Amino acid sequence: MEGCLFCKIIKKEIPAEIIYEDESLIVFLDINPVNKGHALVVSKKHFETSLDLPDSILCDVIQVAKRVAIKQMKELKCVGVNYIMNNFKAAGQEVSHAHLHVIPRFDEDDLVFLQGNKEGYSEGEISEYRQKLEIK
Amino acid sequence: MEGCLFCKIIKKEIPAEIIYEDESLIVFLDINPVNKGHALVVSKKHFETSLDLPDSILCDVIQVAKRVAIKQMKELKCVGVNYIMNNFKAAGQEVSHAHLHVIPRFDEDDLVFLQGNKEGYSEGEISEYRQKLEIK
Repeated sequence: MEGCLFCKIIKKEIPAEIIYEDESLIVFLDINPVNKGHALVVSKKHFETSLDLPDSILCDVIQVAKRVAIKQMKELKCVGVNYIMNNFKAAGQEVSHAHLHVIPRFDEDDLVFLQGNKEGYSEGEISEYRQKLEIK
Repeated sequence: MEGCLFCKIIKKEIPAEIIYEDESLIVFLDINPVNKGHALVVSKKHFETSLDLPDSILCDVIQVAKRVAIKQMKELKCVGVNYIMNNFKAAGQEVSHAHLHVIPRFDEDDLVFLQGNKEGYSEGEISEYRQKLEIK
Protein backbone atom coordinates (compact mmCIF):
# COMPACT_ATOMS: atom_id res chain seq x y z
CA MET A 1 0.00 0.00 0.00
CA GLU A 2 1.14 3.52 -0.83
CA GLY A 3 3.03 5.09 2.06
CA CYS A 4 3.26 1.87 4.09
CA LEU A 5 6.69 1.35 5.65
CA PHE A 6 6.49 -2.45 5.55
CA CYS A 7 5.32 -2.48 1.92
CA LYS A 8 8.43 -0.44 1.08
CA ILE A 9 10.63 -2.98 2.86
CA ILE A 10 8.89 -5.81 1.00
CA LYS A 11 9.51 -4.02 -2.33
CA LYS A 12 13.15 -3.47 -1.24
CA GLU A 13 12.70 0.30 -1.49
CA ILE A 14 13.92 0.56 2.11
CA PRO A 15 16.69 -1.68 3.46
CA ALA A 16 16.10 -4.12 6.31
CA GLU A 17 17.92 -6.97 8.00
CA ILE A 18 15.95 -9.80 6.43
CA ILE A 19 16.30 -13.24 8.00
CA TYR A 20 13.66 -15.15 6.01
CA GLU A 21 11.58 -14.67 2.90
CA ASP A 22 9.17 -16.79 0.86
CA GLU A 23 6.21 -16.13 -1.43
CA SER A 24 3.86 -15.33 1.43
CA LEU A 25 6.04 -13.72 4.11
CA ILE A 26 9.09 -11.69 4.97
CA VAL A 27 10.86 -11.70 8.34
CA PHE A 28 13.24 -8.93 9.35
CA LEU A 29 14.76 -7.55 12.56
CA ASP A 30 13.01 -4.74 14.40
CA ILE A 31 15.39 -1.75 14.40
CA ASN A 32 14.10 -0.75 17.84
CA PRO A 33 14.26 -4.14 19.52
CA VAL A 34 12.70 -4.95 22.87
CA ASN A 35 15.60 -7.39 23.08
CA LYS A 36 18.29 -7.79 20.43
CA GLY A 37 17.22 -10.33 17.83
CA HIS A 38 13.55 -9.20 18.05
CA ALA A 39 12.07 -10.15 14.67
CA LEU A 40 8.89 -9.23 12.79
CA VAL A 41 7.00 -11.81 10.71
CA VAL A 42 5.13 -9.87 8.04
CA SER A 43 2.59 -10.84 5.39
CA LYS A 44 3.82 -9.69 1.97
CA LYS A 45 0.30 -8.81 0.94
CA HIS A 46 -0.94 -5.70 2.72
CA PHE A 47 -3.60 -6.27 5.36
CA GLU A 48 -4.13 -3.81 8.17
CA THR A 49 -4.44 -6.33 11.02
CA SER A 50 -4.51 -10.06 11.62
CA LEU A 51 -8.31 -9.86 11.73
CA ASP A 52 -8.17 -9.22 7.98
CA LEU A 53 -5.55 -11.88 7.24
CA PRO A 54 -6.84 -14.95 5.38
CA ASP A 55 -6.49 -18.11 7.47
CA SER A 56 -3.88 -19.57 5.12
CA ILE A 57 -1.56 -16.57 5.64
CA LEU A 58 -2.20 -16.64 9.39
CA CYS A 59 -0.97 -20.24 9.36
CA ASP A 60 2.12 -19.24 7.43
CA VAL A 61 2.80 -16.47 9.97
CA ILE A 62 2.57 -18.65 13.08
CA GLN A 63 4.53 -21.54 11.55
CA VAL A 64 7.38 -19.26 10.56
CA ALA A 65 7.23 -17.55 13.98
CA LYS A 66 7.91 -20.97 15.51
CA ARG A 67 10.90 -21.47 13.23
CA VAL A 68 12.26 -18.04 14.18
CA ALA A 69 11.76 -18.79 17.89
CA ILE A 70 13.62 -22.10 17.61
CA LYS A 71 16.46 -20.31 15.81
CA GLN A 72 16.59 -17.59 18.48
CA MET A 73 16.74 -20.18 21.28
CA LYS A 74 19.62 -21.94 19.52
CA GLU A 75 21.65 -18.97 18.31
CA LEU A 76 21.02 -16.37 21.00
CA LYS A 77 20.82 -18.82 23.93
CA CYS A 78 17.67 -17.11 25.08
CA VAL A 79 15.50 -19.06 27.52
CA GLY A 80 12.08 -17.85 26.44
CA VAL A 81 10.28 -16.28 23.48
CA ASN A 82 7.13 -14.17 23.16
CA TYR A 83 4.91 -14.07 20.08
CA ILE A 84 2.84 -10.89 20.04
CA MET A 85 0.36 -9.57 17.49
CA ASN A 86 -1.03 -6.13 18.30
CA ASN A 87 -4.20 -5.44 16.35
CA PHE A 88 -5.18 -1.77 15.99
CA LYS A 89 -3.66 1.28 17.65
CA ALA A 90 -5.39 0.75 21.01
CA ALA A 91 -3.52 -2.57 21.25
CA GLY A 92 -0.17 -0.95 20.54
CA GLN A 93 0.04 -1.58 16.79
CA GLU A 94 2.47 1.00 15.40
CA VAL A 95 2.57 0.04 11.71
CA SER A 96 -0.81 -0.65 10.11
CA HIS A 97 0.40 -3.70 8.20
CA ALA A 98 -0.26 -7.01 9.96
CA HIS A 99 2.82 -8.41 11.70
CA LEU A 100 3.83 -10.73 14.51
CA HIS A 101 6.65 -9.91 16.95
CA VAL A 102 9.01 -12.73 17.95
CA ILE A 103 10.95 -11.55 20.99
CA PRO A 104 13.81 -13.50 22.59
CA ARG A 105 13.74 -13.43 26.39
CA PHE A 106 16.29 -13.97 29.10
CA ASP A 107 15.93 -14.63 32.83
CA GLU A 108 15.14 -11.44 34.69
CA ASP A 109 15.51 -9.21 31.64
CA ASP A 110 12.99 -6.90 33.30
CA LEU A 111 10.63 -6.75 30.33
CA VAL A 112 7.04 -6.35 31.35
CA PHE A 113 4.04 -7.87 29.63
CA LEU A 114 0.46 -8.27 30.68
CA GLN A 115 0.73 -5.52 33.25
CA GLY A 116 -2.31 -3.41 33.74
CA ASN A 117 -5.68 -2.89 35.25
CA LYS A 118 -6.35 -6.28 36.75
CA GLU A 119 -9.71 -5.22 38.06
CA GLY A 120 -11.14 -8.71 37.96
CA TYR A 121 -14.71 -9.92 37.65
CA SER A 122 -17.39 -9.24 40.23
CA GLU A 123 -19.43 -12.25 41.34
CA GLY A 124 -21.21 -13.90 38.43
CA GLU A 125 -19.81 -11.41 35.94
CA ILE A 126 -17.48 -13.89 34.24
CA SER A 127 -20.50 -16.00 33.21
CA GLU A 128 -22.06 -12.96 31.54
CA TYR A 129 -18.88 -12.48 29.55
CA ARG A 130 -18.86 -16.17 28.63
CA GLN A 131 -22.40 -15.88 27.30
CA LYS A 132 -21.48 -12.82 25.22
CA LEU A 133 -18.38 -14.46 23.76
CA GLU A 134 -19.57 -18.00 23.08
CA ILE A 135 -18.77 -19.07 19.54
CA LYS A 136 -21.26 -21.60 18.20
CA MET B 1 -0.59 -34.39 31.85
CA GLU B 2 -0.81 -35.28 35.53
CA GLY B 3 -1.07 -32.18 37.70
CA CYS B 4 -1.58 -29.78 34.77
CA LEU B 5 -4.30 -27.18 35.46
CA PHE B 6 -5.29 -26.85 31.81
CA CYS B 7 -5.46 -30.63 31.31
CA LYS B 8 -7.89 -30.73 34.24
CA ILE B 9 -10.05 -28.05 32.63
CA ILE B 10 -9.97 -29.99 29.34
CA LYS B 11 -11.08 -33.15 31.14
CA LYS B 12 -13.81 -31.09 32.90
CA GLU B 13 -12.35 -31.97 36.29
CA ILE B 14 -12.16 -28.24 37.03
CA PRO B 15 -14.88 -25.82 35.85
CA ALA B 16 -14.13 -22.98 33.44
CA GLU B 17 -16.07 -20.46 31.39
CA ILE B 18 -15.69 -22.19 28.03
CA ILE B 19 -16.53 -20.13 24.94
CA TYR B 20 -15.42 -22.56 22.23
CA GLU B 21 -14.44 -26.20 21.90
CA ASP B 22 -13.62 -28.57 19.06
CA GLU B 23 -11.53 -31.72 18.64
CA SER B 24 -8.24 -29.85 18.68
CA LEU B 25 -8.81 -26.86 20.99
CA ILE B 26 -10.64 -25.41 23.95
CA VAL B 27 -11.11 -21.68 24.61
CA PHE B 28 -12.05 -20.35 28.04
CA LEU B 29 -11.92 -17.06 29.91
CA ASP B 30 -8.88 -16.22 32.05
CA ILE B 31 -10.10 -15.90 35.65
CA ASN B 32 -7.50 -13.17 36.24
CA PRO B 33 -8.13 -11.09 33.15
CA VAL B 34 -5.87 -8.30 31.94
CA ASN B 35 -9.14 -6.90 30.60
CA LYS B 36 -12.53 -8.52 31.06
CA GLY B 37 -13.21 -10.95 28.23
CA HIS B 38 -9.53 -12.02 28.11
CA ALA B 39 -9.60 -15.53 26.62
CA LEU B 40 -7.11 -18.39 26.38
CA VAL B 41 -6.89 -20.58 23.29
CA VAL B 42 -5.53 -23.94 24.43
CA SER B 43 -4.42 -27.09 22.61
CA LYS B 44 -6.30 -30.09 24.01
CA LYS B 45 -3.25 -32.26 23.66
CA HIS B 46 -0.60 -31.35 26.23
CA PHE B 47 2.48 -29.61 24.86
CA GLU B 48 4.64 -27.44 27.07
CA THR B 49 5.11 -24.50 24.67
CA SER B 50 4.22 -23.47 21.15
CA LEU B 51 7.71 -24.55 20.07
CA ASP B 52 6.55 -28.14 20.62
CA LEU B 53 3.14 -27.69 18.97
CA PRO B 54 2.75 -29.43 15.60
CA ASP B 55 2.15 -26.93 12.79
CA SER B 56 -1.39 -28.17 12.22
CA ILE B 57 -2.38 -27.36 15.83
CA LEU B 58 -0.58 -24.00 15.65
CA CYS B 59 -2.79 -23.18 12.65
CA ASP B 60 -5.89 -24.19 14.58
CA VAL B 61 -4.81 -21.96 17.48
CA ILE B 62 -4.24 -18.81 15.43
CA GLN B 63 -7.37 -19.27 13.30
CA VAL B 64 -9.55 -19.64 16.39
CA ALA B 65 -7.77 -16.68 18.03
CA LYS B 66 -8.91 -14.59 15.06
CA ARG B 67 -12.50 -15.76 15.53
CA VAL B 68 -12.35 -14.90 19.23
CA ALA B 69 -10.90 -11.46 18.45
CA ILE B 70 -13.65 -10.72 15.93
CA LYS B 71 -16.24 -11.79 18.52
CA GLN B 72 -14.65 -9.58 21.20
CA MET B 73 -14.64 -6.54 18.86
CA LYS B 74 -18.34 -7.09 18.12
CA GLU B 75 -19.66 -8.01 21.57
CA LEU B 76 -17.41 -6.01 23.88
CA LYS B 77 -17.01 -2.99 21.59
CA CYS B 78 -13.27 -3.09 22.18
CA VAL B 79 -11.11 -1.20 19.68
CA GLY B 80 -8.05 -3.42 19.66
CA VAL B 81 -6.95 -6.95 20.47
CA ASN B 82 -3.61 -8.51 21.42
CA TYR B 83 -2.62 -12.09 20.70
CA ILE B 84 0.18 -13.19 23.02
CA MET B 85 1.97 -16.52 23.39
CA ASN B 86 4.52 -16.64 26.18
CA ASN B 87 6.92 -19.54 25.73
CA PHE B 88 8.77 -20.66 28.87
CA LYS B 89 8.91 -19.03 32.29
CA ALA B 90 11.40 -16.31 31.29
CA ALA B 91 8.81 -15.09 28.78
CA GLY B 92 6.06 -14.94 31.39
CA GLN B 93 4.45 -18.34 30.78
CA GLU B 94 2.60 -19.23 33.99
CA VAL B 95 1.01 -22.56 33.02
CA SER B 96 3.29 -25.02 31.22
CA HIS B 97 0.65 -26.06 28.67
CA ALA B 98 0.81 -24.15 25.38
CA HIS B 99 -1.81 -21.39 25.13
CA LEU B 100 -2.48 -18.13 23.35
CA HIS B 101 -3.94 -15.08 25.12
CA VAL B 102 -6.58 -13.04 23.26
CA ILE B 103 -6.94 -9.73 25.09
CA PRO B 104 -9.55 -7.10 24.24
CA ARG B 105 -8.21 -3.54 24.37
CA PHE B 106 -9.75 -0.12 24.76
CA ASP B 107 -8.39 3.35 24.14
CA GLU B 108 -6.07 4.43 26.91
CA ASP B 109 -6.75 1.37 29.08
CA ASP B 110 -3.25 1.86 30.48
CA LEU B 111 -2.10 -1.66 29.77
CA VAL B 112 1.57 -1.87 29.02
CA PHE B 113 3.22 -4.18 26.55
CA LEU B 114 6.65 -4.25 25.00
CA GLN B 115 8.10 -2.09 27.72
CA GLY B 116 11.60 -2.84 28.73
CA ASN B 117 15.30 -2.53 28.15
CA LYS B 118 15.36 -0.87 24.76
CA GLU B 119 19.11 -0.81 24.69
CA GLY B 120 19.28 -0.83 20.91
CA TYR B 121 21.99 -2.04 18.57
CA SER B 122 25.45 -0.52 18.38
CA GLU B 123 26.73 0.31 14.89
CA GLY B 124 26.85 -2.76 12.66
CA GLU B 125 25.55 -5.01 15.41
CA ILE B 126 22.13 -5.58 13.82
CA SER B 127 23.85 -7.20 10.80
CA GLU B 128 25.61 -9.65 13.10
CA TYR B 129 22.26 -10.61 14.55
CA ARG B 130 20.80 -11.01 11.06
CA GLN B 131 23.63 -13.38 10.13
CA LYS B 132 23.04 -15.44 13.27
CA LEU B 133 19.30 -15.68 12.72
CA GLU B 134 19.04 -16.20 8.96
CA ILE B 135 16.83 -19.16 8.12
CA LYS B 136 17.86 -20.89 4.90
